[in-house]
Amino acid sequence: MSVEQMITEMGKAAKEASRLLRGTQRAAKDAALLLMADKLLDRKEDIQRENEKDLSLAKERGIPSAMLDRLTLDDKTLLSMSEGLREVAALPDPVGEVTGMWKRPNGLMVGKVRIPLGVIGFIYESRPNVTVDAAALCLKSGNSVILKGGSEAIHSNIILEQILREALRETGLPEKIIQVVPTTDREAVRILLSLDQYVDIVIPRGGEGLIRYVVENSRIPVLKHYKGVCHIYVDEYADLGMASDVCFNAKVQRPGVCNAMETMLVHEKIAHEFLPAMGKRFQEAGVELRGCPKTLNLIPYAKQAVESDWPAEFLDLVLAVRIVSGMDEALDHIEKYGSNHTEAIITKDYERSRRFLAEVDSSVVLVNASTRFNDGYQLGLGAEIGINTSKLHAFGPMGLEELTTTKFIVYGDGQVRS
Amino acid sequence: MSVEQMITEMGKAAKEASRLLRGTQRAAKDAALLLMADKLLDRKEDIQRENEKDLSLAKERGIPSAMLDRLTLDDKTLLSMSEGLREVAALPDPVGEVTGMWKRPNGLMVGKVRIPLGVIGFIYESRPNVTVDAAALCLKSGNSVILKGGSEAIHSNIILEQILREALRETGLPEKIIQVVPTTDREAVRILLSLDQYVDIVIPRGGEGLIRYVVENSRIPVLKHYKGVCHIYVDEYADLGMASDVCFNAKVQRPGVCNAMETMLVHEKIAHEFLPAMGKRFQEAGVELRGCPKTLNLIPYAKQAVESDWPAEFLDLVLAVRIVSGMDEALDHIEKYGSNHTEAIITKDYERSRRFLAEVDSSVVLVNASTRFNDGYQLGLGAEIGINTSKLHAFGPMGLEELTTTKFIVYGDGQVRS
Repeated sequence: MSVEQMITEMGKAAKEASRLLRGTQRAAKDAALLLMADKLLDRKEDIQRENEKDLSLAKERGIPSAMLDRLTLDDKTLLSMSEGLREVAALPDPVGEVTGMWKRPNGLMVGKVRIPLGVIGFIYESRPNVTVDAAALCLKSGNSVILKGGSEAIHSNIILEQILREALRETGLPEKIIQVVPTTDREAVRILLSLDQYVDIVIPRGGEGLIRYVVENSRIPVLKHYKGVCHIYVDEYADLGMASDVCFNAKVQRPGVCNAMETMLVHEKIAHEFLPAMGKRFQEAGVELRGCPKTLNLIPYAKQAVESDWPAEFLDLVLAVRIVSGMDEALDHIEKYGSNHTEAIITKDYERSRRFLAEVDSSVVLVNASTRFNDGYQLGLGAEIGINTSKLHAFGPMGLEELTTTKFIVYGDGQVRS
Repeated sequence: MSVEQMITEMGKAAKEASRLLRGTQRAAKDAALLLMADKLLDRKEDIQRENEKDLSLAKERGIPSAMLDRLTLDDKTLLSMSEGLREVAALPDPVGEVTGMWKRPNGLMVGKVRIPLGVIGFIYESRPNVTVDAAALCLKSGNSVILKGGSEAIHSNIILEQILREALRETGLPEKIIQVVPTTDREAVRILLSLDQYVDIVIPRGGEGLIRYVVENSRIPVLKHYKGVCHIYVDEYADLGMASDVCFNAKVQRPGVCNAMETMLVHEKIAHEFLPAMGKRFQEAGVELRGCPKTLNLIPYAKQAVESDWPAEFLDLVLAVRIVSGMDEALDHIEKYGSNHTEAIITKDYERSRRFLAEVDSSVVLVNASTRFNDGYQLGLGAEIGINTSKLHAFGPMGLEELTTTKFIVYGDGQVRS
């Protein structure tokens, strides 16, 4: 069977399975999730044996140790994956919620009810634990999923699929709800992206290159973010102690993620008071600072920022710093260089907090809090399958509800249109 | 200036204008809409002079008279367009609505607030009144719009744009909120579809060919429906008088639209009682019937349906008729041949009504009512810019709310992540 035939068959099977899953009650979905959680621990040896194959190949290819860490399914990772499944089982089922119902003058009762999207194509790199997370969120929200992971995790992903499907089978759910693409052939992605008759949305998770490839080649709607160039604006009326703590957290607590701060904008009236100490705190934490000319006057050990630093997602202990003349300049900077991901203002001023919240066009806008809170768990969505910075469908973190849509249901008594 | 430069400049200008529009209060938007409504009538002569140019060219090219009718901006059409603008002004402003707010354990207040999408690319055929309708809905929902109409309406669309922009200027709103692509060069569409840095969504309205072209060439998310193959299932327990009235309305009242019934499924137990009279009623209204073999036994003057009739969108006085053994067969038929648009069941049975509503995967599912109610006005959305049969963002008719998205706003007191 060619790759094209194989992927097409998978799409068709996913769609058929999704029809059965659509009407499945919460109890059956949760039972499957809990059985999966048990099996991940019971079948530890099988999983680790397959994971070892991926690790050996990765070592042969000289993959850096940070990536090897991410690829490793040790006891601790498996336990955390198993717990993750239990947490998803405990979340409310979004399917079936009636989000509104009203009566029309002609007597029709019109309602909107939450339904699964159908079939989700999930394309990602590295980390085999994502295979289980994504499968769980799709199952709970009533969707079939086709998972295309990174080639370096192929053995791990295939054994995980087998175990998840055992659990589906044993709870009487259709196995084809969860399918891992069992090939490392890149062609598989191209074909998956053309199956708009079977696949309802595609979610890519990985580097900017992967995401651009998916957007440019997909005939299916894509939920994605390219990058997070997150800003904090330290206003003239900021509590400077709070500003220091929040900015430090946003940059240093986990610099390699999309909701870390990449540029700090500082009002010129408090720059002389704020920046020298803030700079020192960053320097001691190993943060490389790249400043505008005015910043260099206050932090002489900073590098001079170049134009390409402003739209950069460093994903590292690097921070661009710019002194602005006021709120207008800060908002203009964010409009020009931001990625519509996450921005925060630090201020004690009521009117400025309101203006920042209203005018910044990002998926999460915060007052006096770290950008690191742009996260499904942190914002209270319960879980997260990714963050979307296109405005369609779900702007921001996507949880279970964002893996559903609504349809209209209409109760009539014989009404016709005249 | 090349077409590419021109369209790119339009995209950039639309995005800049959308930033200003984002924070515009309802009063200013409504004032502009009401002024537009006045101007459409005050400037009647100018509009009709330009419209006459389009009509002459169309006649020269021998365009059919039904299309000429749709192209004509006579007094009655202009009055109805003007009234449409007043109706949009009277609708509530969706922007700024807080759709939810909750407190996290760490004290963060997290809310979701409705915001405009940004820039909408609207690509459509014929009818210049759509130019005004679409511009009004985009303005009211806080979006800039780039309108690419059919080449046969180019003069009409350009004068309408001028008049709408006069109203924007006179109410102090940025003119570039509304832009008509002033060329009939097809290349303009291709370029528009590539401007993902400026345009947030694309809505095509027209024939299946146009829509497929847009989906296949767009790097921007597309809201669209290809076709409406709408079914009514007349159940064993239907009120047959009601079934006759509803089916007649769904097929005959306006056969050329996407929510008209294209296939009628009839339970075998009531077929002998229902179909002969129903067939006669359709025959008298000039409806051509294409039936399955069992149908032909009851309606001898029907044509024999061929396989290609089942997935067909006739958009005409043609109806496919099939007798089914029961609800399962009806649901299977809809799953196989339907377009996820609109389906209805006629039944007096409680359990079957519930099952149909739950299992049919269409944007609007009705019990005992005509498929013709799949329409933004009819369902109570106030207005409609189109119907979306992809599940993303807005499944079904799209009104003002569906031209917005939500962002998260977060009120903190210095919270950081640990």
